[in-house]
Amino acid sequence: MNNTPKGFCFATARAGFRKSKCNDTALVLSKTPAVAAGTFTLHKFPAAPVQIGKKLLSNHSKMQAILINTGQANACTGLEGLKNCHNTLELLSNVLGFNSQSILPASTGIIGVQFNMTLWEKVIPILVKKLGKDSPEDFAKAIMTTDAFPKLAHQEVQLPQGTIKITAIAKGAGMICPHMATMLAVILCDADIQVDCWRELISHAVNTTFNRVTVDGDTSTNDTVYALANGCSNISITTSDSLALLEKGLISILYKLAYMLVQDGEGATKVGHIYVTGALSDADAEIVARTVGTSQLVKTALFGQDANWGRIIAAIGRSPATFDPLSVCVKLCGIEVFYNGQPTQDNFDELLKEPLQQEDILIEIQLGQGPGMYKLLTSDLTYDYVKCNASYRS
Amino acid sequence: MNNTPKGFCFATARAGFRKSKCNDTALVLSKTPAVAAGTFTLHKFPAAPVQIGKKLLSNHSKMQAILINTGQANACTGLEGLKNCHNTLELLSNVLGFNSQSILPASTGIIGVQFNMTLWEKVIPILVKKLGKDSPEDFAKAIMTTDAFPKLAHQEVQLPQGTIKITAIAKGAGMICPHMATMLAVILCDADIQVDCWRELISHAVNTTFNRVTVDGDTSTNDTVYALANGCSNISITTSDSLALLEKGLISILYKLAYMLVQDGEGATKVGHIYVTGALSDADAEIVARTVGTSQLVKTALFGQDANWGRIIAAIGRSPATFDPLSVCVKLCGIEVFYNGQPTQDNFDELLKEPLQQEDILIEIQLGQGPGMYKLLTSDLTYDYVKCNASYRS
Repeated sequence: MNNTPKGFCFATARAGFRKSKCNDTALVLSKTPAVAAGTFTLHKFPAAPVQIGKKLLSNHSKMQAILINTGQANACTGLEGLKNCHNTLELLSNVLGFNSQSILPASTGIIGVQFNMTLWEKVIPILVKKLGKDSPEDFAKAIMTTDAFPKLAHQEVQLPQGTIKITAIAKGAGMICPHMATMLAVILCDADIQVDCWRELISHAVNTTFNRVTVDGDTSTNDTVYALANGCSNISITTSDSLALLEKGLISILYKLAYMLVQDGEGATKVGHIYVTGALSDADAEIVARTVGTSQLVKTALFGQDANWGRIIAAIGRSPATFDPLSVCVKLCGIEVFYNGQPTQDNFDELLKEPLQQEDILIEIQLGQGPGMYKLLTSDLTYDYVKCNASYRS
Repeated sequence: MNNTPKGFCFATARAGFRKSKCNDTALVLSKTPAVAAGTFTLHKFPAAPVQIGKKLLSNHSKMQAILINTGQANACTGLEGLKNCHNTLELLSNVLGFNSQSILPASTGIIGVQFNMTLWEKVIPILVKKLGKDSPEDFAKAIMTTDAFPKLAHQEVQLPQGTIKITAIAKGAGMICPHMATMLAVILCDADIQVDCWRELISHAVNTTFNRVTVDGDTSTNDTVYALANGCSNISITTSDSLALLEKGLISILYKLAYMLVQDGEGATKVGHIYVTGALSDADAEIVARTVGTSQLVKTALFGQDANWGRIIAAIGRSPATFDPLSVCVKLCGIEVFYNGQPTQDNFDELLKEPLQQEDILIEIQLGQGPGMYKLLTSDLTYDYVKCNASYRS
């Protein structure tokens, strides 16, 4: 694949962790040890692979493989879950013939169920045999759960010395997808970069992209982003200019994936773009954006294509942010509906009928207090969301 | 009505604020000035009647009437909205022949639309003429919006000196009902009590009942509880014993109404009773209870009668409360599913199948940290919730 960064190969297979016939395991290998970064859920019950992945990255700056399964989250599984995760990495390292400390694990699926290790024993040799025969697309498909489509993007970063490539793959139809929790992403890059630089870049890029989407407000036990930079392009990131270009490329590709997560939010038909400006601080702007973006009433109004801007005001007003109600202005689809605390006119239903039929809905909130701002993507709340989440196991 | 406190009379009528043929205005009058208390939404865009009601109660300890309309919230209506509310009270006081400063206003309905004052001019004489001809039941029906049933309860408090009666009436199918915001309640009592005592009693009773329910997590612009005690029983509350008995009666009647609000949550089929104990503080317990009680995933699982306790753990773990994950225990319908951070067994689907079919679902969370506790009622999230909120105006 000439749009994929150099030196990575992929494999997928079906172990049987899910009832469906889909592949449920995926492996990516770098031909050389790669500088590695990871960002993880802040959940107080982090899954076993999250605990282990964190520890590996705190002890080692380079990694060579990432192993992912769907169907079981290996979360809330106690000591047995940790042991099973360690044993899985050992199994793979034995077949690959390198140290188990250079493989990162990730899982997504039902919480609280222990692995049947026989499935891992069977599937690992198959995965290793298939390495290089599968594509990033196959990888993206193998880590899907309630996702309606695979989430994959490629990005080239042009530098004076040559071109760096980035491939990013994610799964998730929500900050959490029930049972089959959650959001996972793998970022692969062939740049040659120092580990501290890479980790700071990834942390910043994740914070401005993945951390600014919401489907249901539920953070999962398994959220993980792994990022490998293997240097196989032989292009070194040493100047601040090249660092800035790489950062721009990373944010661009991660934003594409973050958008896809919301677009594929369980049952979603709309993507709401919430832009809050004029807050006292960025933190205050975030509070307002999250209150509006997780309001069930705002989300059902998006679904109903309803010009009911009162629900946006209702959400803003119950947020704990600091502002003067008489300075608040709101635009919906670019049309000013609320200015300095008062409605601007009466015929919103007519004015907004057409714009609200679009898939992307812009909600601009100006608090009139200071320089704080925040952007958040959210999905709508639909019949299919309830169906997906109420009837999955019944 | 011999279960209604002495000295109150009721009237209802249709003004035309709603498209439906239902009565949309309601008036209650005390034959003598009554000690008055009020609790109001903490929303930053309080409706005009909330602003005016608050001011009246801060200037006066006694009130004689409460006037309520549905269909329009008179919220986010600016100075014109305030003027319209004042003028409505003036119109009523002119017909009744007493000071407009002794009438409390409340509104519920669509946000951001101005009153057609002609409708008020026409309906007020009708209301006054009907005073005494309508019942508390009629009153409860006239303030309904998306409510499926009227919410009314009576309570007797036996004291050594005789019996005090309390009638409480509420509306609301959620902390907010879209367009036709919100939760309103009127508490009528014939006790003779000092204003400070009454206000403290009401504040405490509201805090332990109405403030501990959630349907959609959306606080409204119009939430109001008014409470009148007119002394017509000629029974004075002077001893701490009688105060305690009255408080017990008040909490009991308000809990009944709070339960009804959740039971009638938009589209609801279940009432979830979330009991958090063992938190470091009551505030921490509240945070956990509210995170679980507003989780879309927990609420859809309740609807789906799904033994998916992992969603409860997922919500607990993402809450900002302080606790050791290895001390957390959870019971669902009385059955221990999670003990000291580990699942207790594997056959939950079978064990919980029958219990989860009940209307009332008990979720007990023990954090194992300290003495903090909190109880919260929540509803489930259903297809009908989405229908009610997405298709109302379309």
